[in-house]
Amino acid sequence: MSEPSDAMWRPVLRSRAYELVVDQIEELIVAGTLRVGDRLPGERELATRLEVSRAAVREAIRSLEAQGVVRSAVGSGKDAGTVVSALPSEALTRLLRFHVALANFPRQHVVEARVMLERESVRNAAERATPTDLKAMRELMSAMDDPDRDRERFNELDTEFHVAIAEAGGNRLVADMTIAVRESMQRPLLHASHALGEAWASIADGLRQDHRSIYEALEAGDGVTAQQRMETHILGFWDVCAAAEEQPERDGR
Amino acid sequence: MSEPSDAMWRPVLRSRAYELVVDQIEELIVAGTLRVGDRLPGERELATRLEVSRAAVREAIRSLEAQGVVRSAVGSGKDAGTVVSALPSEALTRLLRFHVALANFPRQHVVEARVMLERESVRNAAERATPTDLKAMRELMSAMDDPDRDRERFNELDTEFHVAIAEAGGNRLVADMTIAVRESMQRPLLHASHALGEAWASIADGLRQDHRSIYEALEAGDGVTAQQRMETHILGFWDVCAAAEEQPERDGR
Repeated sequence: MSEPSDAMWRPVLRSRAYELVVDQIEELIVAGTLRVGDRLPGERELATRLEVSRAAVREAIRSLEAQGVVRSAVGSGKDAGTVVSALPSEALTRLLRFHVALANFPRQHVVEARVMLERESVRNAAERATPTDLKAMRELMSAMDDPDRDRERFNELDTEFHVAIAEAGGNRLVADMTIAVRESMQRPLLHASHALGEAWASIADGLRQDHRSIYEALEAGDGVTAQQRMETHILGFWDVCAAAEEQPERDGR
Repeated sequence: MSEPSDAMWRPVLRSRAYELVVDQIEELIVAGTLRVGDRLPGERELATRLEVSRAAVREAIRSLEAQGVVRSAVGSGKDAGTVVSALPSEALTRLLRFHVALANFPRQHVVEARVMLERESVRNAAERATPTDLKAMRELMSAMDDPDRDRERFNELDTEFHVAIAEAGGNRLVADMTIAVRESMQRPLLHASHALGEAWASIADGLRQDHRSIYEALEAGDGVTAQQRMETHILGFWDVCAAAEEQPERDGR
């Protein structure tokens, strides 16, 4: 539908009006009643229909805008032109990064989630990766081969390699979750690479070999082997990081 | 640290100042430099340090507040008292629901993600579920046994059953993702149950049996069987729903 019917806007009866306005708009979106491109009623109209103040409606819209759920249509007036927008992947990956950074999970839970997600991603990639996807992975591995590569850049390339596998998996939702969780680990992993000191050089060689063996199984279309190697790779480096971890309070336990 | 040092605030040089302010705050959070409970510099001070307008800082803070990343500390003045807050699970599950509803994924990708997440959750639950967790699951199954249960309530209880398994898995991050994806399917599944018409009664019996067999494997600590039964359950009902699906554009393809 392109215009909400009057019937679908029920008056909001309880307190914390702004959150209840958000809840009701969310319900309509999750139900598929409001879809990308649909225009919300104007601020005054919504306030009347929901029986809340215009300030509550304004606050709710602002909150949904901040989350990328709605946007103000160009050139529209104050009382109209808020449109449901296609949520960019970045909105999700950003919030997941915040969530992992702030929600104080045991690091072990993040690692478990990463293993689950990257096993799924690499299995999908072994089935679905295109020659272009494979070329991108090979280029990232080559870039990581440079022995003079500093730890910051190595860490970036390592992240990009795992992101490339997630993208090649072809499932956007799984890829978004995989990327967000992997990116949330980027800083802690960099921290660990510094904490490793001189040992880093040999650890990095191990990571290069892991990546190559994962890539070989993936390119051969052997999803089961690729999954096993991915899990070994993630858990193996995690053990090294845990040993090198100098800020135990960082892991949230 | 409880007070950010001057050094960590680099002036923002490019345009779209408000987003760059958010980016820089995110960097400090993901890096672990800013942690839950840390206070941000006041609006005026941040604007000076980042060399952006106070309006840009205000907009950035508002956006982060809307996402639950920061909150205004009680009784603090206009130019102080924005504190990094522990992001509630609800903030993530809500955005994931929005994301699944708006990001126009092929429904098949959402089902794949659900299978991945619920296989992991039920495997964890088979290892970790407490007697209290198991009791809650049994009560939900009993509530679903009522033959007069309407489809709305059955759907709610079904969702609660899957959520209970995710919670029992004991991995908060995996549980949050599982709950969000399962909840994002609640309305489409309800829609399908209505589209099934008279066939619903026998389908519902099949779902009750699925739940019981998943529960039995879980209670017996047999994670592998529980995973297989969960996957069969999810894919089986999805096939039924796909057949009953009366609004093909709803599945995002």
